[in-house]
Amino acid sequence: MIEKRRYSYTVLPREVDSSKRATIMTLGDYILHTAGEDADRNGFGVEKLQQSNMTWVLSRIAIEMKRFPVQHENYTIETWIENVGRLMTTRNFIIRDADGKVIGCASTYWAMIDFTTRQPLDLRKNIEYADAANPEPCPIDKPIKVPTVCGNIVERHKVKYSDIDFNCHANSMKYVEWMIDILPFDKLTNKKLSRFDINFIHETRFGEEVDIVLEQVENIDRFELKRSDGTAVCRAQFVWNNEA
Amino acid sequence: MIEKRRYSYTVLPREVDSSKRATIMTLGDYILHTAGEDADRNGFGVEKLQQSNMTWVLSRIAIEMKRFPVQHENYTIETWIENVGRLMTTRNFIIRDADGKVIGCASTYWAMIDFTTRQPLDLRKNIEYADAANPEPCPIDKPIKVPTVCGNIVERHKVKYSDIDFNCHANSMKYVEWMIDILPFDKLTNKKLSRFDINFIHETRFGEEVDIVLEQVENIDRFELKRSDGTAVCRAQFVWNNEA
Repeated sequence: MIEKRRYSYTVLPREVDSSKRATIMTLGDYILHTAGEDADRNGFGVEKLQQSNMTWVLSRIAIEMKRFPVQHENYTIETWIENVGRLMTTRNFIIRDADGKVIGCASTYWAMIDFTTRQPLDLRKNIEYADAANPEPCPIDKPIKVPTVCGNIVERHKVKYSDIDFNCHANSMKYVEWMIDILPFDKLTNKKLSRFDINFIHETRFGEEVDIVLEQVENIDRFELKRSDGTAVCRAQFVWNNEA
Repeated sequence: MIEKRRYSYTVLPREVDSSKRATIMTLGDYILHTAGEDADRNGFGVEKLQQSNMTWVLSRIAIEMKRFPVQHENYTIETWIENVGRLMTTRNFIIRDADGKVIGCASTYWAMIDFTTRQPLDLRKNIEYADAANPEPCPIDKPIKVPTVCGNIVERHKVKYSDIDFNCHANSMKYVEWMIDILPFDKLTNKKLSRFDINFIHETRFGEEVDIVLEQVENIDRFELKRSDGTAVCRAQFVWNNEA
């Protein structure tokens, strides 16, 4: 079992929206960065895995925020591996303000794959990794499987240079940016995003075009990104509260 | 005179392109962040100025990189105020790798304005600020006035939620992102950006549409962002070298 660890951050001016609060993309970025740092520190980082022709693939994220940290605010993200299944592992996160008060939580699912065959590996056979689990549960519900989205194509996005990472794949948080940019400004600044879930199904590469489908049901926005052949790339669900 | 100070950073995975090098937007972001940090530290930060109904307005940036730092690399940015003119002040930057070797330089021009009237203030009357100047010159040429761009409209961009800062204005580095996303992928990854200049003329707000005009002359790309009424929002010049 590996102890939970906390990582410290500050909200930079370029990471907030017009309400001076960190955006959901910012929090997602730092949650993923924390996962990477902690995995590195424990010997399971991407660079270490790549030496054995393996890598991590992010499958799902859930984030629930009581409040979003504001510009210049210091906050910490604590992380631990809760569970190691055969094909999927759960990594949790608790976000706290400078006084140590919990302001949000997140939970993520990851698979370890063979870099060449892209097939998932049995995580339980990786004894060292399986031993790292700390069974403490996450205070929020696990990431959900977002249902198929029944809605209209509201936009088409072509993957740009600024969207991609070192793999030439679109960065995970860019998917969120494409979706959120479609929503009304009023909702983004006056309602509170109380829970966010995203499922990553396929990667997209530079130059690829994806259709963005949106279904709105009461206080929920559901998005699906689809290739022109209908393959789902990712699905996400935003649940909004009235108070901002 | 205020001593030059160095600030330390690390290139995060989300800040690189497919060549694993930090993008020009990343360097610009951290250069501006360093300016903000250093101004805060010396009592001339935006929040301090706002108490007196004043703020900083960025006018020009020039960046020359010998090489771009790569993913996970540590680097420092040193900054100082070189000059305080009546309407414009010069702040310089030297970017160094972990061994202290210079890998790039930048120079910026700023005006201080009255928040209500938006009129520039006489910087020399701000004795404390005028005294902060350290006359050491920047190793690179000052930011140029980018000439009017004679070219075609290659794209129209509508300012999105993810483009804006706490003022509801598009973030300065987003202008660079809109431009660079238009250039061929091959140039972005196989040529070396040896010098970049940008002039900020007008701010753009959420929902505004700008036309992007591009003029290409030999190894130079010149961009102008224009409102539909023809007003220039910003102009920039990218100079490319053959070696990447």
